[in-house]
Amino acid sequence: MAAAADLDRLADVAVRLAEAAGPEIRARFRRPIPVEQKSNRTPVTEADRAAETAMRAVLAELRPDDGIIGEEFGAHRTEAPIVWVLDPIDGTKAFMSGRPTFGTLIAVLVDGVPAVGVIDQPVVGDRWVGAVGRPTQHNGTDAKSRPCPRLDAAILSSTSPDQFDKPADADAFDRLQRRVDFVTWGGDCYAYGLLASGHLDIVVEAGLALHDFSALAPVVTGAGGAMTDWRGDPLRLGSDGRVLAVGDPAMASTVRALLNGNP
Amino acid sequence: MAAAADLDRLADVAVRLAEAAGPEIRARFRRPIPVEQKSNRTPVTEADRAAETAMRAVLAELRPDDGIIGEEFGAHRTEAPIVWVLDPIDGTKAFMSGRPTFGTLIAVLVDGVPAVGVIDQPVVGDRWVGAVGRPTQHNGTDAKSRPCPRLDAAILSSTSPDQFDKPADADAFDRLQRRVDFVTWGGDCYAYGLLASGHLDIVVEAGLALHDFSALAPVVTGAGGAMTDWRGDPLRLGSDGRVLAVGDPAMASTVRALLNGNP
Repeated sequence: MAAAADLDRLADVAVRLAEAAGPEIRARFRRPIPVEQKSNRTPVTEADRAAETAMRAVLAELRPDDGIIGEEFGAHRTEAPIVWVLDPIDGTKAFMSGRPTFGTLIAVLVDGVPAVGVIDQPVVGDRWVGAVGRPTQHNGTDAKSRPCPRLDAAILSSTSPDQFDKPADADAFDRLQRRVDFVTWGGDCYAYGLLASGHLDIVVEAGLALHDFSALAPVVTGAGGAMTDWRGDPLRLGSDGRVLAVGDPAMASTVRALLNGNP
Repeated sequence: MAAAADLDRLADVAVRLAEAAGPEIRARFRRPIPVEQKSNRTPVTEADRAAETAMRAVLAELRPDDGIIGEEFGAHRTEAPIVWVLDPIDGTKAFMSGRPTFGTLIAVLVDGVPAVGVIDQPVVGDRWVGAVGRPTQHNGTDAKSRPCPRLDAAILSSTSPDQFDKPADADAFDRLQRRVDFVTWGGDCYAYGLLASGHLDIVVEAGLALHDFSALAPVVTGAGGAMTDWRGDPLRLGSDGRVLAVGDPAMASTVRALLNGNP
């Protein structure tokens, strides 16, 4: 893993990327769909591309030797020791329907492991910055996840029941959902930031891609939480997309046992 | 129904209520839970009460003879021809988990029928004001719902699958969901404002109370949409809480047929 000072510098660059992406996204959010456009997906596609282009321009200037895996424009130099993972708009459906609960995700993989992560909501103005070995920041102050000694007091969040389209995954989620205080739906990456700031306790999702989860783990762990796959293994290049974040690490084994059918 | 000039005056008072409620809610949003508080519901309860108290103070000054039905402090003078319906925080779970997608709902019933409605999101700063017979306003400009000629291009929104806990309701929602482009979850009252502004096409919910739905119908209809119960009857005191809003009224009968099992 890179030295702390290096991660600090990389986190500063990640913030520069978020600042470059934000104006491109805000300019296209809730934009009316011109009649000649065939699909209401067009605005999100344009916003995705413009934001990723703006982020790549910053990297070309400041980090020309690093690798990049971007949702829109593909992968380059992924054999480099430092690889940037960019998801200009995580939460496409939220963006398309005018909800300010999507986010821009920026991650740095060091030797394939997420080491720096930024979750940026450019409309509301919420930005979480996490890096291994230092406290997560939310809008410039330390973010701290909260203790949750009892599962039946926990707030569980997930983006959509559609994620659990495999029956075994739906059963796993259902076992957990019956034991918590309540589930709140919607949110995409925003939910992980809210967990890092102590507003909710558990996020369980499935079907996440590398560009979806890489930025989230440093934010969650730097706030005192834990984030792994459903088996408890660290998230990295090659993870299966089933993710679990808890604000209180003491709760992780109980939640995993429910997800894995060993309650 | 009251004359248009009267509704304009009532809409102006409704905006005053939203302006009184907003600071009380913002001051309590994402507030850490003190250790001595037993439940993380306490902040929302406090915000609900403070916001309703602030709104009732405005009504006591400006509309002392009207009736009030408030979510927190009950009903008074409901036999009056004009009754205010107040829901300080619609979307308790969103508020509790730090998501700025809840809203303050303010409605005026004239002879039991919603005639004025305000949906106010005090964190993001989105306010929709609707009154029968005039265009809905979003932050001071006309809101217009959008045409949606094809069901398979529609964005459907609903707050939570938990609303459809009756099997017949779950089946109804499922018949519809299979025919649209996609479902976006979460949102509470915010979804109806986004529909009024042409960002999504259909909202279907169940289990709504009078204070949940009364403000929504004037906002949706004043933007060119349609809002009824699942049978197509107007929403009013006594409606069963199953609601349907469509941005394009030409789509309403198709959607109702699916919900009612006559596709």
